This record gives sequence, structure tokens and C-alpha cells, in this order.
Amino acid sequence: MIEYRNVRVALLGGGTVGAQVARLLLEHKEEFASRVGASLELTGIAVRNLDAARSADLPKELFTTDAESLILGADIVIEVMGGLEPARSYILQAINSGADVVTANKALLATHGTELFEAAERVGAQLYFEAAVAGAIPIIRPLRESLAGDRVKRIMGIVNGTTNYILDKMDTEGASFDDALAVATELGYAEADPTADVDAFDAAQKASILASLAFHTTIPLESVYREGIREISGKTVELAKKAGYVVKLLAVCERVTDQDSGVEAVSARVYPALISREHPLAAVHKANNAVFVEAEAAGSLMFYGAGAGGPETASAVLGDLVSAARRHIIGGPGLGSSLEANIEMLPFSKIQTRYYIGLSVLDQKGVLANVANVFSDNNVSVEFVQQSVDSGVQGREATLIVGTHFAQESDLQLTVEKLSKLESVSAVDFFIRIED
Amino acid sequence: MIEYRNVRVALLGGGTVGAQVARLLLEHKEEFASRVGASLELTGIAVRNLDAARSADLPKELFTTDAESLILGADIVIEVMGGLEPARSYILQAINSGADVVTANKALLATHGTELFEAAERVGAQLYFEAAVAGAIPIIRPLRESLAGDRVKRIMGIVNGTTNYILDKMDTEGASFDDALAVATELGYAEADPTADVDAFDAAQKASILASLAFHTTIPLESVYREGIREISGKTVELAKKAGYVVKLLAVCERVTDQDSGVEAVSARVYPALISREHPLAAVHKANNAVFVEAEAAGSLMFYGAGAGGPETASAVLGDLVSAARRHIIGGPGLGSSLEANIEMLPFSKIQTRYYIGLSVLDQKGVLANVANVFSDNNVSVEFVQQSVDSGVQGREATLIVGTHFAQESDLQLTVEKLSKLESVSAVDFFIRIED
Repeated sequence: MIEYRNVRVALLGGGTVGAQVARLLLEHKEEFASRVGASLELTGIAVRNLDAARSADLPKELFTTDAESLILGADIVIEVMGGLEPARSYILQAINSGADVVTANKALLATHGTELFEAAERVGAQLYFEAAVAGAIPIIRPLRESLAGDRVKRIMGIVNGTTNYILDKMDTEGASFDDALAVATELGYAEADPTADVDAFDAAQKASILASLAFHTTIPLESVYREGIREISGKTVELAKKAGYVVKLLAVCERVTDQDSGVEAVSARVYPALISREHPLAAVHKANNAVFVEAEAAGSLMFYGAGAGGPETASAVLGDLVSAARRHIIGGPGLGSSLEANIEMLPFSKIQTRYYIGLSVLDQKGVLANVANVFSDNNVSVEFVQQSVDSGVQGREATLIVGTHFAQESDLQLTVEKLSKLESVSAVDFFIRIED
Repeated sequence: MIEYRNVRVALLGGGTVGAQVARLLLEHKEEFASRVGASLELTGIAVRNLDAARSADLPKELFTTDAESLILGADIVIEVMGGLEPARSYILQAINSGADVVTANKALLATHGTELFEAAERVGAQLYFEAAVAGAIPIIRPLRESLAGDRVKRIMGIVNGTTNYILDKMDTEGASFDDALAVATELGYAEADPTADVDAFDAAQKASILASLAFHTTIPLESVYREGIREISGKTVELAKKAGYVVKLLAVCERVTDQDSGVEAVSARVYPALISREHPLAAVHKANNAVFVEAEAAGSLMFYGAGAGGPETASAVLGDLVSAARRHIIGGPGLGSSLEANIEMLPFSKIQTRYYIGLSVLDQKGVLANVANVFSDNNVSVEFVQQSVDSGVQGREATLIVGTHFAQESDLQLTVEKLSKLESVSAVDFFIRIED
């Protein structure tokens, strides 16, 4: 049997994920060695401040503030420090010094992914990032490898645990958005400033990564349409529930045909949407994540699990580490990737969805006809109309719920705009897309 | 850019799966070339009978009955003919002539896996088999790679679509086993002779493969405990439903501690069991499959999708083919695998589960005490007892439902045996395990 020298692993970041990665690496040293065929030696943990408390009982001598020296001596660099800088510079340094890199940094990949992948390609290094999307759920590898012989048509993902926790609480307990957010913050699911989660910046980063992998093209973060969940009211959730739907923040990535040019394009977008309670994604509760994939031959697949958390993210990082280490000692192609497709992005205004719209209207003759005319004038076909219970008395306000057939986003937006200007409509209470 | 020569791919088997593999390979030739970095050339399709009808419109000149010559000229051999022989001999021939092999043959792997893997290891060839378990659902690669840095504690899988279809129909429509089987046969979900599915031979093969991968050890097929679903009555399903459970045929693979020796062991077993309706596996309907994995760091994960079907299985085969082809032109370690652990198997009699037992008893004084004594005499602790509605009149028969706490299988079996001999018990109607 060939004896290999140790594989030297440098860890950048000693926070929740970093501490778990270090702990598991040290605790399961023997198992890693037998799976890799060589020992994995943790050469150090780079942190900003040596005095900060660590969440695992790790040897003090492993910690250093000198990340650059640590990177220089490493075969594999694990980056779990987060943020754009200095993470980006450190990863470029690692790649250029010949190391493979494992990262959990979705913001960095969504923002500087192209630069990092090109740098890696130039020197033949690998960049692994299973932990960057949906925590421990293996989704990157299935997309890059298992489905490499198939053609992905569509992805719908619940990829942000915080917002799923909030929406699930609104759905199951009738909580308001503010109350659900308060509980999520108290339990540590939401950060003090919840913007990244609630306004869907985090989900948009993941959508950019998923769409790029699924469609073998580059989907820049800024071309992902993004809408958060702040506007979702308890009433919308309740009405949706009565109609057999549940509100989820969905990352939707799909192959579509541009209706004008007939050209194949892709769309990537993140927004709260209704899905049927029969859909497997409807059963994803609390802070869990799930990614639903439709492929030409494989049909419908779903990957489900915890989307975040220290040990969960560490599990994904360590899976990548084993792959990187095996490649390091034996060589080979690493994970598959290809960006050859270069498909164009469909503008958001051209996507086709269905709408579910709530209107406060004056309960008087002719209102329904006026409303119906606005829809048909703007090429939107109505599937159903429901009048709410508090209607019936002439002159009082009533609530009208309208569900549409598939229509183009620009037509739907124009319809909403025109509805809000109707004299007999006092307010457009909400509009939300329906996915299935 | 380096120009590689074609990768020559031989296909053994032209049935449902083989025809789909060939069709997709030919139709998506360009996409495969760009993902692999070289053209994949389908050199031929070996079949038994050239005149048999093919399910896709494939060039006649590709078909041959001379499998051995086809194998000799191949870089990669895809085996989708099924059965033990000549599949085993052909795969050994391919390995020994230096080809990598992609197979969907679970029966072969469960029966001759050790021989095939050893042969591959001797010459440094790779054996890919994503399609052998749960069709298009990527489960083999996540277990071999994504979770390689974690420790799997338990797997619960719905890995047979036919039985899930039958049990789902019994649950949702109140059908009897015979009626549900008849419909499954009519719709093509069940074969004319349903033994392999209904008596869980197919699920046991998959359990053997999953357990071997998850625990890095060899779990021979004959050490997997196997119980089919023929004995599941409509009444059992109905009573389970009322109690908040659903009956599923589960493949359970887990790390356990042998209570006698204190030694770590593994258990692999297949039987119909009750799971809570809140469990993600309970939402797996029709002929779908799902594998629920609990790992130390990753927590709970679930992989869901279609478990069978020509295109679905072809998708998994082609994902493996892309991996094999990339390895062929660039070299490298291939998929990770390690059988170093060599953990012992826990005898089935020592596993710990809960039981749900239905008894027909004479409705007379002292029956409950008699029954309770049998449980406590055999070290089984009772969690709840329910008396069914048709009881109450002295001397008439009543139904007693008993749920137990966790107990050892041998004690549970002894309890059932003793109960059946009680004078006041006219029949043990059913007993079924509870998993969660």
C-alpha cells in the first residue's frame, strides 16, 4: 500500500461553523484518514481576535491571527469566515498558491463567483461550496454530478430558514409578520437586523448559485429578481390557507422560452408565492430548507433538511474536504462544472405566472364588471372570483379575491396598477404569485 | 485546449432503461461533449434478440448480440440488462479489460457486490451504481461523498415503489391489499409475479446496498431481515390511521449498541411499520420513493423522487456515465468508498422497536389483567391499551389494541407467542412495529 504524507488543512474562521469543523476533524481523525487514505492535519485556525470565546473546546495553540502564513503552508484551505473581504483575497491567495478551497460563503460566490472560478480554472484548482446553499442538504453535488446527464427544467427552493420559520408560524398559528419575526429573533433564527433574510438578499444569492449550476451558465446576482416577505399580512396567509395554498418564500429558477423571440432563456427570481398544500414543499416546516428539482428524465426530485446551523454546515464542509483531500493525493478532475451554455436571462417582466389578488371594493352595482374589464383589457384571463363574507350591503366595502390564469408579469403589473386607479376600488390589498 | 479522443461507451441491455439511455445519449450528444470535455460515442447495444421491439427509435445498426466483442472495445460499459447472469460475467470481463462500469443492477450488487468491488479495486476500475437504489434520486453519491465527513446514524427508506403504491392506496382509499395489488398490476406498477416487490426481496437488496455505504462496511443480503406486506390487512391500516400513523414498507439501517456486549453494531431490516403522519416519509405517496437519513452533524435529511421508470433510471445512469467519462479522460480517484469499518451485524432478535398489537379477546372479567401479565412477564412495557367499539357485552368478542414502549424484538416475539396461547385471547389479529 502506498503511504501518503499528511494533507495539511488550514481553517479560516473560528465562529460557529469553524469551531464545529475543527471539532469534528479532531474527534473523527481516524475515520477521515481511512476515508481519504491519508491523515488530515489541521494546521491552524485563523481568527481576527485570539481572545474571542470559542464554541468548542479546541487546543489554544491552533489559533492564529496570521491567515496569510497559514494559507501558504496549506494543501486545502477551508473558508468559513463569511463576508466579502478579506475572504475573497484569502481565497485568491490560496488558489494562486496551489491549494484547493472549500467555502461556505454564498455572498462571496454570488458576488465574486466568476472571478474565483476563473482563477481556480487558470491554475487547475478546485473550489468546493456544498455548504453555501441549503446547509447540510446535498444539492450542489447532485446538480453538478448526479444530474450531469440530464437536463434540469426547473428548481423551486425554500432556501432561507428564517423566512420559512416566520411564514410557517403565520400559517400554523395565525401569527402576524411582526410577532413571528419577534419570536424568530428571540430564538436566534433571525438576526438583530433581519434584512438579509426578510428582504430575500440571502435567498437571491442562493438562487444565483443554483441557477448557474442547473443551467450551466452564469446568472449574476443582480439579474435575480428579488422580493421579500415584509408585505405578507396575516390576512393574505389566512385567505391563502382557506383556498388550499400556503405562502412560501420561493427561489424559482427555470428554463423558459422568450415569447417574443422564441429563444430559450432562463429566469431566476425570489418572491413569496402561493403553493398548493398538496405540493411536497408545503410540508417543509419551521426553519427547514428544501429544494424541489424537475429534470427532463429524472422527473421531480426533492432534497430536504436543515438549512443552517453550525454542525449542519460543518457536515457539508467536511464532505467537500474529503473530496478535496482524495483529489489532492490521487489527482483527477474534481467536481464537474461547465458554464458553456451561456443562455440569456429572461427579463422579469416577461415571466409567466398566475396571480392571486385581493381588492377592497365599494359594494355597488357594476363593480365586478369594471374590475373584469381591467383584466381583459390587459390580456389577463381570470380563473376565479370570490367575494368575501362582509359584503352584501349596498354602499359598504367588500373584499374581492381574484385568481388569474397564467399571464405575463408586465400585463399583471399593469392590471394591478389600473385596478388601483378604478373609482370603485378603494385599495389593492395584496397581490401574490402562484407557483406549482 | 487539449483535444481528447472519443470515449467509447458500450451498452448492455436494450429494454426500457437501455432504450432511454441510448436515446438521451444520442439526442443530447453536444451537451454531453461539453460537460465531459470529449465526445461520448455509443459503440453498440448488446441484446439477446435482435428482433425484439425497442421502445425508442434507435439506429438498427447499433444493436448486436455479441456482447463480449462490444465490451472488448469499450472505455465504459453500461449494464442495464438486469439479472445475475450473464450480467455478472460481463461486468467482470469489462473490469478486467480496463473499462469502468455503470450498472443499475441492485440484485447483482446485493448478491455479488463484494466480488465485483474487489475485482474493480484490483485493477483500479470504478463501479458506479447510482441507479441501483431509488432510481433517479441521488442517494448513492450523497452517501459516498457529501456525507463522507459526517457519521450516518440511521437510514429509513421507502425504496420500493410498488409496495408504496399499494399501501398508499390502502391508506387513502381504504382498499384491501388484494384490490390495491390488482390495480397496481393493471397499471404496470406491479409485475405479473409480484413476489420480488411484495415480499420485500427488492427492498432488502437496496437496504443491503444502503447500509453498506452508510456504515462503510459489508452488509450481506442474507443478513438483512426481511418481511413483506402480504399480511397487512385493511383493518390494520385503518386502525393505524385512526391512531395517527401510516403503514409504510421501511428499509431501516442503523447504528446500534449490542445491549449484551456493549459493542457498536449495525442493523439492517425491511418490514412494514407504522410511522407518524407528521413524519416527512408519511407524505410520500403513490409509487414514489424517499430516503430519510439522520447523520451526527447534518441532522435529518430526506431525498425524494420517482423510484423507478425508464427515463428516471436512465437519468441516474447518465449522471454516472458523465462522472466515469470525466475520470476516464482526466484520471483521478472516482467516487469515494471505504469498507474499512467492518462493524458487526446485530442479530434481528436484539433490535429495539415498539410494537402495535391487535388482539381478539373474549369480553370477560380478568382478560385485561391476563394480557397485561404476559407483557410484563416478558419484559415488555405497555404504553397504551385501547378497547374497540364492538366490545362491552359480556361473553362477546372484543378487540384490544396494545401499544408498547421500546423493547427487544425477542421479548416482543415471545410476548406475541404467549398471548396467542392465552385462553381468553381468541386470536392475535396483527402485530406491526412502530418506527420514528
